[in-house]
Amino acid sequence: DPNLKIFSLNSNPGLAKQIAEFIGVELGKSSVTRFSDGEVQINIEESIRGCDVYIVQSTSGPVNEHLMELLIMIDALKRASAKTINVVLPYYGYARQDRKARAREPITAKLVANLLETAGTTRLITLDLHAPQIQGFFDVPIDHLMGVPILGAYFQQKGFNKEEIVIVSPDHGGVTRARKLADRLKAPIAIIDKRRPRPNVSEVMNIVGNVEGKIAILIDDIIDTAGTITLAAKAISESGAKEVYACCTHPVLSGPAMERIANSNIKELVVTNSIALAPEKKTDKVVELSVAPLIGEAIIRVHEEQSVSTLFD
Amino acid sequence: DPNLKIFSLNSNPGLAKQIAEFIGVELGKSSVTRFSDGEVQINIEESIRGCDVYIVQSTSGPVNEHLMELLIMIDALKRASAKTINVVLPYYGYARQDRKARAREPITAKLVANLLETAGTTRLITLDLHAPQIQGFFDVPIDHLMGVPILGAYFQQKGFNKEEIVIVSPDHGGVTRARKLADRLKAPIAIIDKRRPRPNVSEVMNIVGNVEGKIAILIDDIIDTAGTITLAAKAISESGAKEVYACCTHPVLSGPAMERIANSNIKELVVTNSIALAPEKKTDKVVELSVAPLIGEAIIRVHEEQSVSTLFD
Ligand SMILES: Nc1ncnc2c1ncn2[C@@H]1O[C@H](COP(=O)(O)O)[C@@H](O)[C@H]1O
Ligand SMILES: Nc1ncnc2c1ncn2[C@@H]1O[C@H](COP(=O)(O)O)[C@@H](O)[C@H]1O
Repeated sequence: DPNLKIFSLNSNPGLAKQIAEFIGVELGKSSVTRFSDGEVQINIEESIRGCDVYIVQSTSGPVNEHLMELLIMIDALKRASAKTINVVLPYYGYARQDRKARAREPITAKLVANLLETAGTTRLITLDLHAPQIQGFFDVPIDHLMGVPILGAYFQQKGFNKEEIVIVSPDHGGVTRARKLADRLKAPIAIIDKRRPRPNVSEVMNIVGNVEGKIAILIDDIIDTAGTITLAAKAISESGAKEVYACCTHPVLSGPAMERIANSNIKELVVTNSIALAPEKKTDKVVELSVAPLIGEAIIRVHEEQSVSTLFD
Repeated sequence: DPNLKIFSLNSNPGLAKQIAEFIGVELGKSSVTRFSDGEVQINIEESIRGCDVYIVQSTSGPVNEHLMELLIMIDALKRASAKTINVVLPYYGYARQDRKARAREPITAKLVANLLETAGTTRLITLDLHAPQIQGFFDVPIDHLMGVPILGAYFQQKGFNKEEIVIVSPDHGGVTRARKLADRLKAPIAIIDKRRPRPNVSEVMNIVGNVEGKIAILIDDIIDTAGTITLAAKAISESGAKEVYACCTHPVLSGPAMERIANSNIKELVVTNSIALAPEKKTDKVVELSVAPLIGEAIIRVHEEQSVSTLFD
């Protein structure tokens, strides 16, 4: 369909290319550069009048650069008479600032939703929001895709004995996600139950569930500094797990993350390309799975006005 | 008035401090830092419930960082029940992208206006907009301050003989500004009239007006890469000016700017602190004038619901 256009910005050009190939279209011609003073300069180099445009961009770091590129691109497409502007945001930056945890905090995840709508977004396609409630921050339709089937398929093809594995959530917040992966792999779950016995006393890592002699697979949505996941891996080993894998959808991997993972007992870190990995992060321990077929299929269905929900059966 | 609060973000803390001192209040307590992954983290460390809050921030480079800090701060203040949120934006980044000069360009200056209003701005105080039409991009009230009186006062105290000076606009777009400075200094004006005789032939610099034997003062709103201003200075000297000064409100000074100015025949570059100068830009040739008294007086008048227009008499 010549009215379906896919544009890439600078966060994830590799993924955008894979998505376009999956769908069987060329990427739209545009350039997103900087003026001498650092302001974003956008040139859309083909007509998009009357088209359904999909922009592929993650608001991964540098988050403010990537977000402004996205907003300015949306503005340019709107003024160039695009029919619909569909933002494909594999990683939603600022998603962790989704509530006032303390007095006088911003709710930046909601601000970002408002900014995207103000600029002219007509639909959002995104993946594993840190909290599913962020869907309600938008008034335009959202398609919320899940990374669990992709991570699950990877572990399935390893051919582990089902009785041998256990899926572990590194905290209480992630139990639902662990349950979903466990369902796919027909495995039981365990939960790391951190608690602080008294103020200013370090946390105790208590494991709810049985990991002894098992292959443990830790799952989280985001791995950022990798503190939580590497401490969890240590605790599981100390409780008798024979091997520890870790997986997540969004490999933020900032600050000490790569060093912590290298020094940990994690055998493999399995992630998706929702965030492009810098070359120095592509170490032997890291396995990168592509979300291009998932997102590509979602775009086709959205474009044909079909439901995307059966993608997760 | 304990209900008047001034907060600084990271672009211009020195100016914010001067403004607070001029008004006679302490700066509001807050910290604007980054999480490990680069996301903006804001803590407002005092109650602002029911207050009239003024946020001092220029969207100078890194423009996207400074703009996102500002939007997130506005969001936090709004949710903390500020009565009014007054954005003091001495330099309005993206102001040059104020129209579609070519097909499929964004109008980022209008996008920025929409973003500021969406976040919760109730009033804008700004200085020498690249185009005064940008005022119309907003639906909230704007106070548009002028740098010319500050630049004019500086040249006045030099005690030049009035007959000796001429104010020069480096292009057609800046003639009104040159006229305003000339009125203050009771001097005539001249204009650099660039034209390209044929395509792909370099521009001819023609000077309209008399500069021979004179002290020429070039004026622009923004000096960015300093290409225009240093070529203009050269042309004026070649037409017989005996000394060349240059001045502007907003010293963007990106890329080759400082080298071009150092190697030019410009005697002094007179600028304001609407954009904080990096230490390496504070050379012998550069004179920095403060806009703190101007902005401070404007804040007092806005807070007392008086007109700011008499500030320019
Ligand atoms: N980029 C970030 N990096 C680390 N922590 C964050 C970030 N953004 C927000 N937070 C904090 O993370 C907490 C929410 O995380 P969670 O409890 O996992 O939903 C809140 O206290 C936020 O202030
Ligand atoms: N940050 C920037 N640096 C250099 N040129 C810019 C910048 N932003 C916009 N422009 C271009 O500058 C032109 C407008 O400048 P002017 O004619 O001085 O109003 C337009 O063609 C813009 O595309």
